[in-house]
Amino acid sequence: MRIALLGGTGDIGEGLALRWAYHTNHEVIIGSREPEKARAKAEEYETELDSRGVERKVTGFKNEMAADRADIVVLAVPPYHVADTVETIADKLDEGDVLVSPAVGIKRDDDGFHYHRPGAGSVTEIVADAAPEGVSVVGAFHNLAAARLADLDAELGIDTLLVADDEDAKETVRMLAEGIEGLRALDAGGIANAPEIEAVTPLLINVATNNEGLHDLGVRFQ
Amino acid sequence: MRIALLGGTGDIGEGLALRWAYHTNHEVIIGSREPEKARAKAEEYETELDSRGVERKVTGFKNEMAADRADIVVLAVPPYHVADTVETIADKLDEGDVLVSPAVGIKRDDDGFHYHRPGAGSVTEIVADAAPEGVSVVGAFHNLAAARLADLDAELGIDTLLVADDEDAKETVRMLAEGIEGLRALDAGGIANAPEIEAVTPLLINVATNNEGLHDLGVRFQ
Repeated sequence: MRIALLGGTGDIGEGLALRWAYHTNHEVIIGSREPEKARAKAEEYETELDSRGVERKVTGFKNEMAADRADIVVLAVPPYHVADTVETIADKLDEGDVLVSPAVGIKRDDDGFHYHRPGAGSVTEIVADAAPEGVSVVGAFHNLAAARLADLDAELGIDTLLVADDEDAKETVRMLAEGIEGLRALDAGGIANAPEIEAVTPLLINVATNNEGLHDLGVRFQ
Repeated sequence: MRIALLGGTGDIGEGLALRWAYHTNHEVIIGSREPEKARAKAEEYETELDSRGVERKVTGFKNEMAADRADIVVLAVPPYHVADTVETIADKLDEGDVLVSPAVGIKRDDDGFHYHRPGAGSVTEIVADAAPEGVSVVGAFHNLAAARLADLDAELGIDTLLVADDEDAKETVRMLAEGIEGLRALDAGGIANAPEIEAVTPLLINVATNNEGLHDLGVRFQ
């Protein structure tokens, strides 16, 4: 499949891009608001993969162009840019394309990190509200530590939870997720169930902050 | 130590009572609003332990009496009974006693299970607000599947997260938690960090509901 990572120059975008390029044969397209930045990062990822003996073409484009070329569009942008990013690319999406939402609202105070739940209910719901008709939305990859994902030497052995109201789209993303070695994708139901998943991300930071020897945590349901 | 499990006749109370009686030498006291029920359950737990070759005294009392006899009081009652339960036992608590809050507000709709966050911020915070001066509060054991805990043949291999504003009390509960074989206790910071922990419980139910072969789930941070 052709996967566009909008915000693919950022941390979670980098991790997903490298993992998909390394572990699968899906076409990986980096999107950014600045096309030069997208191209530069794509080259950087190619170099990283090349250093591991994997010759892979990774391309970089402006977000709209990246979305236009892809079947699966991952919104690896900060939560407050999600709605306008979907608006920007809306007319480049074809019926049957899938939008994937990994973003999480987090606020920090003196005690720790907390889930900043948006008025819509969740960031995934914001994407669903903004998505053009015929384009399905899947919430996924919320609880992955970006640095660990981007370190191809790091073993995963963790889960990602999927929410979607369209079972076919969910199955497509499940397949993409499980293409990443060590990542298990579990079904968490419909998009209405996204808040509890998004809230795990600040929790992971709190646990890592308060326990020596734990960092870049993920979660395993067992 | 002397541990009172108020609501110790209910599911999570039963699991903790059996595990502590089975794996540790702490004194286990069952509390209930109805003393006969507490005594009957305590006997039932003794019989279960006896069938496994463990001869243990488990006692049962009215909640107030149970709290009076204990150093650690676990509020294994439904979230809407937490505040009045603390009120009922308040004058039986001594300075230095520790209240432990495992309860979680959950609501169900057509999509699944959701965190029902109380106005105070979390159930743990409700307990902290209601606790008499000199009595510390620790949030713990929120994300344990009761049936799995109560089945002494079931392996755990999962984590419980602790929140408290009093580090000594947190350390006491950490020690109690890790006395249970297969349970790892992790520090998640202060009580203000409780909501994200409590929200994991409905998530565990959603994941178990939507994935064949997964049930009575716990979580492991790794």
